[in-house]
Amino acid sequence: MAPLSGITILDLTHVLAGPFCATILADLGAHVIKVERPSTGDDTRAFPPFTNGESAYFAALNAGKRSIALDLKAEADRQIFEALLARADVLLENYRPGVMERLGYGWQDLQSRLPRLIYGAVSGFGHSGPEAGKPAYDMVVQARGGVMSITGEEGGPPVRVGASLGDIVAGMYLAQGVLAALYDRSRTGLGAKIDISMLDCQLAIQEHSIAITTATGIPPGRTGARHPTITPFSTYRAADGFFVIAAGNDALFARLCAALGHPGWATDPRFASNAARCEHVALLKRLIEAVTLGAPCAEWIATLDAAGVPTGRVQDMAEVLRDPQLLARNMVVPVAARPGGPAFTAAGNPIKMSTLPDLRQRGPAPALDADRAAILGWLSGPPEGAS
Amino acid sequence: MAPLSGITILDLTHVLAGPFCATILADLGAHVIKVERPSTGDDTRAFPPFTNGESAYFAALNAGKRSIALDLKAEADRQIFEALLARADVLLENYRPGVMERLGYGWQDLQSRLPRLIYGAVSGFGHSGPEAGKPAYDMVVQARGGVMSITGEEGGPPVRVGASLGDIVAGMYLAQGVLAALYDRSRTGLGAKIDISMLDCQLAIQEHSIAITTATGIPPGRTGARHPTITPFSTYRAADGFFVIAAGNDALFARLCAALGHPGWATDPRFASNAARCEHVALLKRLIEAVTLGAPCAEWIATLDAAGVPTGRVQDMAEVLRDPQLLARNMVVPVAARPGGPAFTAAGNPIKMSTLPDLRQRGPAPALDADRAAILGWLSGPPEGAS
Repeated sequence: MAPLSGITILDLTHVLAGPFCATILADLGAHVIKVERPSTGDDTRAFPPFTNGESAYFAALNAGKRSIALDLKAEADRQIFEALLARADVLLENYRPGVMERLGYGWQDLQSRLPRLIYGAVSGFGHSGPEAGKPAYDMVVQARGGVMSITGEEGGPPVRVGASLGDIVAGMYLAQGVLAALYDRSRTGLGAKIDISMLDCQLAIQEHSIAITTATGIPPGRTGARHPTITPFSTYRAADGFFVIAAGNDALFARLCAALGHPGWATDPRFASNAARCEHVALLKRLIEAVTLGAPCAEWIATLDAAGVPTGRVQDMAEVLRDPQLLARNMVVPVAARPGGPAFTAAGNPIKMSTLPDLRQRGPAPALDADRAAILGWLSGPPEGAS
Repeated sequence: MAPLSGITILDLTHVLAGPFCATILADLGAHVIKVERPSTGDDTRAFPPFTNGESAYFAALNAGKRSIALDLKAEADRQIFEALLARADVLLENYRPGVMERLGYGWQDLQSRLPRLIYGAVSGFGHSGPEAGKPAYDMVVQARGGVMSITGEEGGPPVRVGASLGDIVAGMYLAQGVLAALYDRSRTGLGAKIDISMLDCQLAIQEHSIAITTATGIPPGRTGARHPTITPFSTYRAADGFFVIAAGNDALFARLCAALGHPGWATDPRFASNAARCEHVALLKRLIEAVTLGAPCAEWIATLDAAGVPTGRVQDMAEVLRDPQLLARNMVVPVAARPGGPAFTAAGNPIKMSTLPDLRQRGPAPALDADRAAILGWLSGPPEGAS
């Protein structure tokens, strides 16, 4: 039995942070019932790219979930929602603070009626503070939270992290709060409210830049692909692309120099210590690339692997999805097609557990409201567990 | 009582991914006993920057933990470690696969002796697959996992994400696995092994780039600070820095145009739809910046806030640490000084829970082996719970 078998998640969230959290919980064995707005459903159903008219983005993020469309302002649908709440272990929502209260489903109300319910909320700025209630997008919190200020070329403008870090990290912290609350409920019998702010989460993942800023008074800047205080620790050009050399200490640097055919660099006073290498970082990069441009990435990676120097190719996503190590770990999985629908591809479950069979295929993403009849049937059945 | 009160984490990890996981669990109420190598301890004790000779990096990441130095190859220390294992709920390790087995503490051994123990491992490539056992650094998995290929200027080289995403995200997934295992143990009485690969986790956070690559056959490239398929959704220059405008639909674009004093742009055929705006993205950026360069960020943010257009400043870390919303949420907290030692600053706990008093100060980071006597005293006391 999967760790979260028997757990039912009632998921009012849409777009990314909340659905990402629900997927984490589903991958651990929970049943996720996605409650969507009638007629349009989750906004991401309309997000490109499409295959046969269906969003590949939606399909990957919502694989294996079930869907029911409910209008939470209509009495008949509210009755269904109430019945779902009575059976749910966890309610997830990502409305602006105050919306759930206006619907009559605020935490205060629910807690008194359903003391075991775990209520997980994710919003741009959280449910407290001067900006509680303001909307936010991924890019706004990437900008506000500082990660863009340390991402980009030296001397260049700030750059957005290509993955939607603002949403993803918030979804992960929400999952952690929900899991901790489930454990605690096993002892106390009581649920909890979790209030996650996307902006808070951006600060939480800034380890060294907080230390640098507070200890030195100077906020770190942008250093392109290079580590700010370790050399050589960057990308380098090969004949056919970029690869990484991560030679974090003198012993690894000596091995690198030997592998590149220039053992003398290791004792050159300009490169003999990390401090000296950092001082001559531009020169050392030119010397290394004058060698590495002469052969393709694969050759250098084989050479450095054999020498024990950490290395790896800068892979584009097409290369990533063919990476043998990722394939061996079931990290690229098909999303099953619904009858007549297209198949998709999604990431696998990175949480490999001895108590959890590894995911090799994801169930299809639901059509809007596709599971209404089954869910209503379940609600009219005996009260034990999700179907 | 905090959700993880009474839970003891025996933490063999060092540097970042593992200690980051242990901090998440500590913030939820667990006791963390950091088992360090004698004489040098965790490598990050030697990581700059320093205050009064102590690493600000180590202090922030290990605040509130306790330290004991043990040589797991020396018999006397192994006996202490065995006694700790017998009392621990969770063991964390980030050695290369095989090291724990050689020490006699592999999961197979431990599981038979200590069936309730939860064993959490994080490594570069995981415990299976052709590259199991290879070392990896943050930058290697950022490169291999694809995030660098979609981060950087359009036409420019790949850029590293400024935060150590390779480690951080792996530490978060490990925490999720441990929390799920704690919940499951409350039902089954049995522990579990969790095997996290830093590379796997990089793929897990790539939502739209997997969808784009598999649905279109073309891997996404780099687009600087700009959203690849929504316009205007990027950074813009003001008189004193960069700020973000995230006007994701026609209604928001019309409000933006009015707020900038150019309502006519909204009906200009070159900008009348998102598709048209994406086609003329460079022109629109010039037009917007010709306006926004005339006033400072704060003024534009006030104007756009009032117009309901999502916006925010690109803050450097010094600005982030003064952000009123983050301060109101207790996201910047002091790390208490040990007697005679320096104080530091760290991020607060982003998991705000009704069952968990919010963290307003972190306890001091331990000196190496500082808690040996207290830990040995606890081991010789009654068996209930951590001290």
